[in-house]
Amino acid sequence: MADKKANRYPYFAAETSAEVVIARIGADVDPRFREVMTAVIRHLHALVKEVRLTDDEWMAAIQFLTKTGQMCSDWRQEFILLSDTLGVSMLVDTLNHSHSETTENTVLGPFYVANPPHYENGRNICLDGKGEPMVVRGRVTDTSGAPIVGATVDAWQTNEDGFYDVQQKGVQPEMNLRGVFTTNDRGEYWFRSAKPRWYPIPGDGPVGAMLAAMGRSNIRPAHVHFIVRAAGYDDVVTHVFPPDCPYLDTDAVFGVKESLIGDFQRSEDKAEADRLGFPAPFWTLNWDFALAKAR
Amino acid sequence: MADKKANRYPYFAAETSAEVVIARIGADVDPRFREVMTAVIRHLHALVKEVRLTDDEWMAAIQFLTKTGQMCSDWRQEFILLSDTLGVSMLVDTLNHSHSETTENTVLGPFYVANPPHYENGRNICLDGKGEPMVVRGRVTDTSGAPIVGATVDAWQTNEDGFYDVQQKGVQPEMNLRGVFTTNDRGEYWFRSAKPRWYPIPGDGPVGAMLAAMGRSNIRPAHVHFIVRAAGYDDVVTHVFPPDCPYLDTDAVFGVKESLIGDFQRSEDKAEADRLGFPAPFWTLNWDFALAKAR
Repeated sequence: MADKKANRYPYFAAETSAEVVIARIGADVDPRFREVMTAVIRHLHALVKEVRLTDDEWMAAIQFLTKTGQMCSDWRQEFILLSDTLGVSMLVDTLNHSHSETTENTVLGPFYVANPPHYENGRNICLDGKGEPMVVRGRVTDTSGAPIVGATVDAWQTNEDGFYDVQQKGVQPEMNLRGVFTTNDRGEYWFRSAKPRWYPIPGDGPVGAMLAAMGRSNIRPAHVHFIVRAAGYDDVVTHVFPPDCPYLDTDAVFGVKESLIGDFQRSEDKAEADRLGFPAPFWTLNWDFALAKAR
Repeated sequence: MADKKANRYPYFAAETSAEVVIARIGADVDPRFREVMTAVIRHLHALVKEVRLTDDEWMAAIQFLTKTGQMCSDWRQEFILLSDTLGVSMLVDTLNHSHSETTENTVLGPFYVANPPHYENGRNICLDGKGEPMVVRGRVTDTSGAPIVGATVDAWQTNEDGFYDVQQKGVQPEMNLRGVFTTNDRGEYWFRSAKPRWYPIPGDGPVGAMLAAMGRSNIRPAHVHFIVRAAGYDDVVTHVFPPDCPYLDTDAVFGVKESLIGDFQRSEDKAEADRLGFPAPFWTLNWDFALAKAR
């Protein structure tokens, strides 16, 4: 026992708390797991000390995390919502997907669905006829501006009521406002849709309560989601936002980047509207995507 | 729009990510909540940047936290177990309950039950007759060593199989190895029990998997829990550990403090054993508690 009494190290003390916990990590542990857990433990302990977390605050944190997990289901991922609203999802995305010469990425979000319909260019994906009509046109290129033929442009968005089709099963037509388009031999794609609308993220769980307590908005600004893919290139997962949306500066999940604010134009051109099969006025969005060679 | 284009601040960028999120906290927010959330956001973002968390690691973290929440029930608190095993519970306890002149605190743990039975001094709380018999004797004093009369000493522990009664409902007698004793006019308490045993914390959930991946033990060293209360004094919530337990240095929840290792002595004294109603050999623990005036 003499050695043990001389060495307080293995026992807990506030001053060395993180080191005591880290020293317990075994010798044969995956080096990356060790690196991540070491950083997790250091930051957790530094946080608790910095704010001198009280017993009651600790219990409130335990209850918050428990409720957040218990709110999750096949249709709801409250921990992703927590990560999104604390800016963590955007940070992870930005650290892992930053090309200076390509279209910028932003968060995927929880409303992408597998196997969306593939359409000929020009198809109108707005199946419920709501909202202001919009035509989207552009090119997919490499970082030198050369066209990429056969790239796919996978788009999805909410309807005019602010809901994705999967949030309103039985109310909206299936696959409303979703479609995949393929670039032609000049790298061009185009489709018709409706101008996107802002919407609130789910507010009935612990994350909604947290945002309210933080005095924060739960609104996402209007946007169209895109995943652009081409063989031999890295995917671009992004949004395009209309510049007139009043919620650009307060996106609840921090998805807005200045480079992703699109050139949305309102048009009164009746002849063009007729050609598109739209009433006037309608909206145009011209948007090109630049993809980087796969790393 | 000119102003907005000149000012990238409201939009997300990796370099200023924490500041962007913190800047969104409203003006009329509770100052303490602002302080805590600001520190949470700073540490979360610093952690993600420091380890350059990948997309897959982020998703693994989301799934881990989700499972941890979903494992919680009325009988299981996996987030408290996570906090315990990362040393956070001990840190919060140590920051909030450090008196230099009193018995040191340690974690309460999840197995305390409300309304334990009150007994006369001397009662044997080991109702299943298992394990090596033990007698515990001591005094409750103030920090000057003056006895406190009428203090309550609330004790609980596992049985010889390593389970608390509430973990084995229908197997162990109800309220096995739990009891509250009151100090006499010399500040003394005493009771009979069994020598405590080490035990594994629940290993079938995400926290068990985390400990295994970290190459860590899931064993808690043997201990008797105590809550000592007296009117006008701060409670002491603590454990006492036997010095011969082989798991003192690797407590899965970091509850061991050197000052809490007790004077457990093995006795062959047949006459004393007869007086106690024990077979020989038996164990003795002499343990005094010092309480501080309520702050």
